[in-house]
Amino acid sequence: MKIQLINPNTSQPMTQKMAQAAQAIALPGTQIIATQPQHGPKSIESAFDDVIAAAALMDEIADGYHANVDAHIIACFGDPGLDAAREIATAPVIGIAEAAFHAASLVCRRFSVVTTLSSTVPTAHHLLEHYGFAHLCAQVRATDIPVLDLEKHSEAVYQQLVNECWQAIHQDNAQAIVLGCAGMADIVARLREALPVPIIDGVTAAVTFAESLVRLGLTTSKHGHYAVPKTKPFIGRYQHWNR
Amino acid sequence: MKIQLINPNTSQPMTQKMAQAAQAIALPGTQIIATQPQHGPKSIESAFDDVIAAAALMDEIADGYHANVDAHIIACFGDPGLDAAREIATAPVIGIAEAAFHAASLVCRRFSVVTTLSSTVPTAHHLLEHYGFAHLCAQVRATDIPVLDLEKHSEAVYQQLVNECWQAIHQDNAQAIVLGCAGMADIVARLREALPVPIIDGVTAAVTFAESLVRLGLTTSKHGHYAVPKTKPFIGRYQHWNR
Amino acid sequence: MKIQLINPNTSQPMTQKMAQAAQAIALPGTQIIATQPQHGPKSIESAFDDVIAAAALMDEIADGYHANVDAHIIACFGDPGLDAAREIATAPVIGIAEAAFHAASLVCRRFSVVTTLSSTVPTAHHLLEHYGFAHLCAQVRATDIPVLDLEKHSEAVYQQLVNECWQAIHQDNAQAIVLGCAGMADIVARLREALPVPIIDGVTAAVTFAESLVRLGLTTSKHGHYAVPKTKPFIGRYQHWNR
Amino acid sequence: MKIQLINPNTSQPMTQKMAQAAQAIALPGTQIIATQPQHGPKSIESAFDDVIAAAALMDEIADGYHANVDAHIIACFGDPGLDAAREIATAPVIGIAEAAFHAASLVCRRFSVVTTLSSTVPTAHHLLEHYGFAHLCAQVRATDIPVLDLEKHSEAVYQQLVNECWQAIHQDNAQAIVLGCAGMADIVARLREALPVPIIDGVTAAVTFAESLVRLGLTTSKHGHYAVPKTKPFIGRYQHWNR
Amino acid sequence: MKIQLINPNTSQPMTQKMAQAAQAIALPGTQIIATQPQHGPKSIESAFDDVIAAAALMDEIADGYHANVDAHIIACFGDPGLDAAREIATAPVIGIAEAAFHAASLVCRRFSVVTTLSSTVPTAHHLLEHYGFAHLCAQVRATDIPVLDLEKHSEAVYQQLVNECWQAIHQDNAQAIVLGCAGMADIVARLREALPVPIIDGVTAAVTFAESLVRLGLTTSKHGHYAVPKTKPFIGRYQHWNR
Amino acid sequence: MKIQLINPNTSQPMTQKMAQAAQAIALPGTQIIATQPQHGPKSIESAFDDVIAAAALMDEIADGYHANVDAHIIACFGDPGLDAAREIATAPVIGIAEAAFHAASLVCRRFSVVTTLSSTVPTAHHLLEHYGFAHLCAQVRATDIPVLDLEKHSEAVYQQLVNECWQAIHQDNAQAIVLGCAGMADIVARLREALPVPIIDGVTAAVTFAESLVRLGLTTSKHGHYAVPKTKPFIGRYQHWNR
Repeated sequence: MKIQLINPNTSQPMTQKMAQAAQAIALPGTQIIATQPQHGPKSIESAFDDVIAAAALMDEIADGYHANVDAHIIACFGDPGLDAAREIATAPVIGIAEAAFHAASLVCRRFSVVTTLSSTVPTAHHLLEHYGFAHLCAQVRATDIPVLDLEKHSEAVYQQLVNECWQAIHQDNAQAIVLGCAGMADIVARLREALPVPIIDGVTAAVTFAESLVRLGLTTSKHGHYAVPKTKPFIGRYQHWNR
Repeated sequence: MKIQLINPNTSQPMTQKMAQAAQAIALPGTQIIATQPQHGPKSIESAFDDVIAAAALMDEIADGYHANVDAHIIACFGDPGLDAAREIATAPVIGIAEAAFHAASLVCRRFSVVTTLSSTVPTAHHLLEHYGFAHLCAQVRATDIPVLDLEKHSEAVYQQLVNECWQAIHQDNAQAIVLGCAGMADIVARLREALPVPIIDGVTAAVTFAESLVRLGLTTSKHGHYAVPKTKPFIGRYQHWNR
Repeated sequence: MKIQLINPNTSQPMTQKMAQAAQAIALPGTQIIATQPQHGPKSIESAFDDVIAAAALMDEIADGYHANVDAHIIACFGDPGLDAAREIATAPVIGIAEAAFHAASLVCRRFSVVTTLSSTVPTAHHLLEHYGFAHLCAQVRATDIPVLDLEKHSEAVYQQLVNECWQAIHQDNAQAIVLGCAGMADIVARLREALPVPIIDGVTAAVTFAESLVRLGLTTSKHGHYAVPKTKPFIGRYQHWNR
Repeated sequence: MKIQLINPNTSQPMTQKMAQAAQAIALPGTQIIATQPQHGPKSIESAFDDVIAAAALMDEIADGYHANVDAHIIACFGDPGLDAAREIATAPVIGIAEAAFHAASLVCRRFSVVTTLSSTVPTAHHLLEHYGFAHLCAQVRATDIPVLDLEKHSEAVYQQLVNECWQAIHQDNAQAIVLGCAGMADIVARLREALPVPIIDGVTAAVTFAESLVRLGLTTSKHGHYAVPKTKPFIGRYQHWNR
Repeated sequence: MKIQLINPNTSQPMTQKMAQAAQAIALPGTQIIATQPQHGPKSIESAFDDVIAAAALMDEIADGYHANVDAHIIACFGDPGLDAAREIATAPVIGIAEAAFHAASLVCRRFSVVTTLSSTVPTAHHLLEHYGFAHLCAQVRATDIPVLDLEKHSEAVYQQLVNECWQAIHQDNAQAIVLGCAGMADIVARLREALPVPIIDGVTAAVTFAESLVRLGLTTSKHGHYAVPKTKPFIGRYQHWNR
Repeated sequence: MKIQLINPNTSQPMTQKMAQAAQAIALPGTQIIATQPQHGPKSIESAFDDVIAAAALMDEIADGYHANVDAHIIACFGDPGLDAAREIATAPVIGIAEAAFHAASLVCRRFSVVTTLSSTVPTAHHLLEHYGFAHLCAQVRATDIPVLDLEKHSEAVYQQLVNECWQAIHQDNAQAIVLGCAGMADIVARLREALPVPIIDGVTAAVTFAESLVRLGLTTSKHGHYAVPKTKPFIGRYQHWNR
C-alpha cells in the first residue's frame, strides 16, 4: 500500500528524517511517499504558522489523491488542516498528534506531552479537548527548544528533553510521555532506553494506524461531517481550486 | 475610531451588504473599513473553504495593522483564522460567531442557531464548545440555503428562514435565535418583526463589542497564548510573510 | 439612553465611586442613574450577604422599570439576583462579573480573578461554571482586603493588589486579570500602568455592553426562562410585591 | 432530636401537609418543628419568588438556631438560600431537591423529575448541574399544575401527575421519578401503587438524611466555603441582622 | 430491620471491626449481619484484587437475598461489584465510597479523600467521576499504609493519617476529609478530636443511608439498568449460578 | 508475533467465529491464539455476567502470560476486566469496544453503536464516558437480539441489524456504525455492502491495533495505574492466585 507522509512545514531535512522513521516502522509492502508543501513556513510554532501551513497542505493532499495513495498522514503535532483534508480526500487521513494520543491511551491512564516551544502548548490543549483525551493528559510541557534545532541532534537538546521527561514522571506522575513534535522521531530510541515509561512518537504511531485502517477497509465517512465540499469559484492564488 | 470589517470570502456584494449593516449600527465617530481577501473561495461552507479563507485573511489583518485600525472584525460565522489573527494583530480582533454567542448569552439561557448549509453545522458546534457556550445552545439548524443565495433577498429565502426560526422556538424551546451567517444581516429587521424572541446578528453585535473594547482600552493580551509569532522563513506564495 | 447602575450593597461612597467610573466611560448621550438599596448589608462578602442584598435589590430594579431606564447594571461581583431581575425587568440586565468575564474572554484564553475576601471565592467559581467561562479561568485569588477598605485607597491596599496580580501572571500564567470587586474601578488605571496584561473592570465593561445591547435593540427574552413571574400574594415586608 | 422543617413559602396549609409527612417518617425520638416565613410569596414558581423567599427564610434559620435544633430542612424544590443558610447555621442544613436527588442516585442510574410549573424547570436544571447529578437526570418535566393547586388534592391533579410519570417512564426511559415539589408529599403513596418504578419525595428523604447526619455527628464544615459570615452593618428592613 | 454488611475481602478481623462500628451507629431495631466471602484476596488494593473480590462477593449478596435482608452494604472503598449486586438483589445495595461521598457533599463543597495505598487512587477517581462528585473532590491522597496494617492500630499509623489530613486541609483547602478505607472506621473518633473539619467514614454513613432507604420504602429500580439478569448456563466454578 | 484472543464468555462456537475473523485480518506473521475461560457464563449481557466473566478471564490472561504472547485481546464489547488484565499482564491488552471506538473516531465525528440486548446499553455508555469518546457517540441502539442468536446467522437477525443501522443513519445522523458485540464479526462484510457508511467491528480493529502496539514497541506502562499488584493471600476458589 502507498501512504503519503506530509510534513506540513517547508523544511526538507525534517521531511527526510520523518520519512526514514516512517519507512522503518512500515510493513514490508508499504511505500512511504514523503512530501512537503512548496509554500509556507519553515516550521510551525504558532496559530499563524498553522493557518498558513494548513492552506498550503491542501495541495499536497490533492497530489496524494491523484497519486491514488491509500492513506495520508499529516506529520505536524498541531494536526493542521486535518478536518479539511478529510473533506477533500477519499483515503483515510490521520494526524500525528491524534495518533500519538490514541496510542498513549491504549497503554496508560495518564500521560504528559513534552513539546518544543511554549507557543505550541495552546494548540496541544485544544486538540486534547477536541479529540476527547484531555482527561488522560496530566500536563503539556514545553522545553522551549525551537523546532528546527531538533534537527541538529545535539547532546544539549537531548539532555533538555530527557530532563523534561523526568520532570513529567516525577511531578505529574506521568505514566507515559507523548513527544509533541514530528522532528523528535529519531530521538525516541535513545529516550526509551533512558526512561522507565512508554515514549510515544506520533509519526510511527500514525503509520501503523494508517496501515490498520487500510487493512480494515475503513475510510473517512463521506456521510455528513466530512462530505466532499461543494465546488465553487476560487480566485487569486487559490484559483487552482476552481472546480 | 477605525474598525476593519473583513469579509473572509471573496464575494464583493456580501462585503458591501455587511458594510452597510455595520456602518448603520456604528457610533458617530466610527469608520467602518470593509474589505475582503483577493484570494480564496467565493463562499465558506466547509472546513476546506475555511482553511483556504483563513490563510488569505491574514493579509487583510496585516493591511489593517498597517492602516492603524483600532479593531478587526472577522465577518464569517465560522470565525476563520481568529486565533492566528490575534497573534499578528495588536488591535483587538472579534469574530462574528463569537460576538453573536456573547450577545445571546446576555439576553437568554437557551438559544438556537439558524444557519445556511448543513455542512457548516459542525463548525458551529466546534465554536460553541471552544468558547464555552455549548450549554446555552439548544440546536444548530441548517436551512440548506446556499450562502450566496442569501444575497438574492428572495421571498422564498425569507420564508425558509422564518419557518426554521419558528421551529427553533416550538421544537427546541429556543428563547432567542442566533443567525448563523454574515449574509443575513439585512433580513434581521424583518425577522424581528415576525418573531417573538430576540434575533441576534453577529456583524452588528461584533461592531458594538469591538467599539466597547476600544473604549475600555482593552486589547488582545500579548502575554502567552496570543504572543507575536517568531519570525521565520516562508517560501512560495507566502514568501511575503518572511520577516 | 438611561442606564441604571445599582450598587447592591448599602455603602453610599462605593455607589458614588462606581457612578463616576461608569459615567466616565459612558457614551455622550448616556445618563448613568446610580442607586443602592435602602435595605441590606453595607458590603457583600458571603452567600448570606448575597441573599439579603438580592432581595433588597429587586426594589431598585422595580424603580428603574418605572423610571423607564434602557438597561440595568447589577454592580457587585457576585451578580446577586441577576436571574430574578431579568424576570421582572423589561430592559436588559447585566451583572458586572458576567460583563468582566465576557470582556476577558475576548482578549485572552486564560485569566485570573483577583478579588477581596476569600469568602467570595466560591461565588466567583460558581458564576464561572454557570456562565460557561470556567475553562478560561486559571485561578480565583483572594487578597483578603475587606471590601470597604477598598474605598480608602491606601497605598497598602494598592500594593497588595498589584502583588497578587503579579503572582497571577507568574504562577498561573494568567494572560489577563479580572478585578473581582466593584469597588476596584478607580484603581484600574494605576494597575494598567504597572502590569503587562489587560486589567478588566466589570463596572466599565458592563456599561459598554449594556449600551451595546440597547443600540442593537436586544432585550432579555421573555420567552421561557425569563418570563414575567405570575402575580401572587406576598405578605409581611414584601407585601408591596402583591400584584 | 429536633429537626426544623422550613416551608419557604407563606402558605400555611402546605406547611402543615409537609409537617405531617415529615413526622410520619421521622424516628420515634425526632421532633419535627415545622415553620414558614412571616414574609414573602405564597408560592415559589420563579427566580424572583425564590430570591424573596430566600431572604425571608434566613429569619427562620436564625430562629431554629436559637431553638437549638439539630438540623434544618429547606422544604422547597428550588432549595432557596441553602448556601446562605449553611453559613449562618451551626447544625446541618439540607434542601429537599438535594435530598431527593441523592436518594434517586442510590436506587437508579436515570431518573426524571416531574414538577409543577414550567417556570421552575430552569431552577431544577441549575441544581442538577450544581450538585453533580445532571448526568443521571433524563428530563425535567413540568405538569403546569400551579403549586397551590396541589393542596386541593383533586382527582384531576392526580391524573395529570400520573400521566406525566408514565410519559417519563416510556419516553425518557426513566428508572425512577423525583417529585419536584414539596406539596406533593401526600400523593406519593398513591403514585407508588400505580407506577412500577421508585417514586421519590424530597421532604421525607430530607428527614431521614438529616437524622443520618445528626446520628453520624456530622455538621456543615465551617472551614472555608460555609464559614460564619463577618458581622457588619445592615440597614432598613434587615437591620435585625446587625451583629 | 436486617442489614447485611459485606466486607469484600477475606480478612476476618476487618469484618469484625466494621461490624462493631456498624452496630454502634445502627438504630435500635437494626440487626447488622456482617459477612465476608469464602473466596478471594485478603485485601483489595488493585483493579485485579477488585475483580476477584467482586465475583466472590456475588455469593454473599445471594446469601443475603435468601436471608431476606432489608439492605446490603458493600464495605470496601472501591465499591466492587456494586452494579452487579444491584441487578441480582431486590433489597437496596449501597457502597461505602458512594455513601461517604454523599455524606461529604451534604456538609461541604470541597473534600479530600485520604486513602491507603496509592494503587487505590485510580479507583477512587473513577468512582468520583462515575457518581458525579469529582467537582467536589480537591485531591485523593494516599498514605501508603497497607490495608491490613490498619488493623494493627499502631500510633505510627495514626500519625501518618492525621498528618495527611492536615496536609489536605492546608494544601488542598479541604473542608472535610473522606476516609478512603473500610478499615479506618475505628480511628474516626480520634481523628475527629484532632481535626477542625468533618471526618467522614463510609461504613457508618452507609448504615444510616441504608436504613433511610428502607424507612422510605425505596429499593433499587428494576426498570432498565438494574433489571434482573437473564438466566443462562454457567460452567466450572460458577456453575451454581446456573438458573 | 503471537496474539491471544480471549472470548470472555464460555461459548465455544463464538470463540471459533472470532478466531476466524481475527486470523483473516492478521498480518502474515501473526498467530492468533483463541481461547475462552473454563468458568463463567455462556454469554455476557448484564453487569452481573460481566463481573463473573472478568474474574474467570484473569486465568486466561495468566495463561497467555506464561505462553509469552505479544498482546492480549479481550473480545467482549463490555471490555470486562481490562484494567485488571493490564495490571497482571506485561504485554499490551486491548478491549474490542475500546478498539472499535478508536477506529470510529479516526473516520468520523459522530457514530452510533448498534448492540444486542438493551441490558448491555449502560455498559456501552459507561465505557464511552470512561475512555473519552462520549462526545462522538450519537446513540447506543439495542436490537434486542440475544447474543447467542447471533451465532445462528439467520436472515431475520441480519434484517434486524441492517434496519437498526439505517435508523442510526437517518435518525441519529450517524456517520459510522460501531457494532456492539463480538459475535457480529462475520456479518460485517454483508452490512458494508448494504450501507453507505463505515461499519466498524471491534475484533478485527483490535487485532490491527494490537499488532501496531507490538510493532511500535509499546506496552502497558507499569508506572502508576497499571503497576503489578502486590502479592497477597487468596483463599478458596482463588487460592491459585496466592503468590
